[in-house]
Amino acid sequence: MSNKPTLHTSLSPTLLHLYDVSNSIVVIIDVLRATSTIATALYNGAKSVIPVDSVSRCMEIGRQIEAVTAGERDGKIAEGLEYGNSPFEYPREFIEGKTLVLTTTNGTRLLHMALDKGAKEIITGSFPNLSAVCDHLVEMKRNVILGCAAWKDRVNIEDTLFAGGIINRIRDHFSINCDSSQMAEVMYEKGKKDLFGFLKKNDASHYHRLMGFGLEKDLRYCLSEDEANILPVYNDGKLVIKQP
Amino acid sequence: MSNKPTLHTSLSPTLLHLYDVSNSIVVIIDVLRATSTIATALYNGAKSVIPVDSVSRCMEIGRQIEAVTAGERDGKIAEGLEYGNSPFEYPREFIEGKTLVLTTTNGTRLLHMALDKGAKEIITGSFPNLSAVCDHLVEMKRNVILGCAAWKDRVNIEDTLFAGGIINRIRDHFSINCDSSQMAEVMYEKGKKDLFGFLKKNDASHYHRLMGFGLEKDLRYCLSEDEANILPVYNDGKLVIKQP
Repeated sequence: MSNKPTLHTSLSPTLLHLYDVSNSIVVIIDVLRATSTIATALYNGAKSVIPVDSVSRCMEIGRQIEAVTAGERDGKIAEGLEYGNSPFEYPREFIEGKTLVLTTTNGTRLLHMALDKGAKEIITGSFPNLSAVCDHLVEMKRNVILGCAAWKDRVNIEDTLFAGGIINRIRDHFSINCDSSQMAEVMYEKGKKDLFGFLKKNDASHYHRLMGFGLEKDLRYCLSEDEANILPVYNDGKLVIKQP
Repeated sequence: MSNKPTLHTSLSPTLLHLYDVSNSIVVIIDVLRATSTIATALYNGAKSVIPVDSVSRCMEIGRQIEAVTAGERDGKIAEGLEYGNSPFEYPREFIEGKTLVLTTTNGTRLLHMALDKGAKEIITGSFPNLSAVCDHLVEMKRNVILGCAAWKDRVNIEDTLFAGGIINRIRDHFSINCDSSQMAEVMYEKGKKDLFGFLKKNDASHYHRLMGFGLEKDLRYCLSEDEANILPVYNDGKLVIKQP
């Protein structure tokens, strides 16, 4: 019992400093839609995904290297970029062998915070790669922080649900003394039979936001387990598939 | 619909700055045990409760005015103070007509944060005064922030449950676009039949902490609704009963 590694959940980037990042694997969670799209692009053969925090930085890298530039603002492709945030924009026939430079705000900022605090390893998680994340965490036997990207630092339901989904599967392998983790699992247990319906019923702010953009298909995909079951790991500025 | 006041839940003091404090009533929530004890002492006739953030400040005020000084560290009465944090230490025959100076860390810090940010009104909430809080919020028709005191900034289950209990009763009177509030209500709905059992089952960190100190009776009382159903309001450094 006592020699199990610990697991904590940080429900917002603002809370990350409360946890011992430098001794942990940090899982970056931005379910709608950044980390779902990252998993999907890599699963479909992208060489790497470079997460950046601004449109201008995205364009700059796009000029420096041959890469697909992508990002949205207010539900539309950002001016100066080529593609959006939808996982459906990155099928194998398009993205295979290419580098994707993706601008996201919440997820990228959290990733850089984890990096600055010296995380042992940074990976990204989403329902489409839930099993790969769980298998890796169990195998590594290290302390884990589930880092929810949230929305402008406000806690959100979908990232919490995903943290709960991980905990629900791997809790026996960890020592969990963390109310946020317990809450996340309660939420997941309550919602797991129909995650889409759960977001709808509980008026999740991103449910409304994405439905308002006509993105029900994206929402449903981003809540589906193991559709793109690879493990993205951050290394030297890039997310690549972790080789077993 | 659109002219209803808003309601948000801040799950940790670290998140309070995300909300529009200066236009809101802030409810300070520190269920185990500060705000439960505050409600109880006032219900039993205390003239006022002065919340302070340190043992030294508590002793200092105790020397300046005739007051009962109280506070704990690690489950024991802090050195230099007279009484502890248990609501059972403040029956009417003892506390009536007296001023209680109470040192608490999490709750007092949050209260001062809300004060610094210019909250319209600051009240304290706990299960023993749940109905008084709800009635007041409905009556005031103002924006509300439910401020969980948490534990050293880490989100905790019991404060979240109480926020959920408020929302569960008064949601129709407010416009709620806040995932934290939705999550709090899901938690409350799940736990409301047996809050004590819910904390136990979900390994709440404060459940273990207080049970370890032999304080099951405190725990059960602090989870009981309307046992001390008055409304503490903060005014000029003191919490007093709000007169209707």
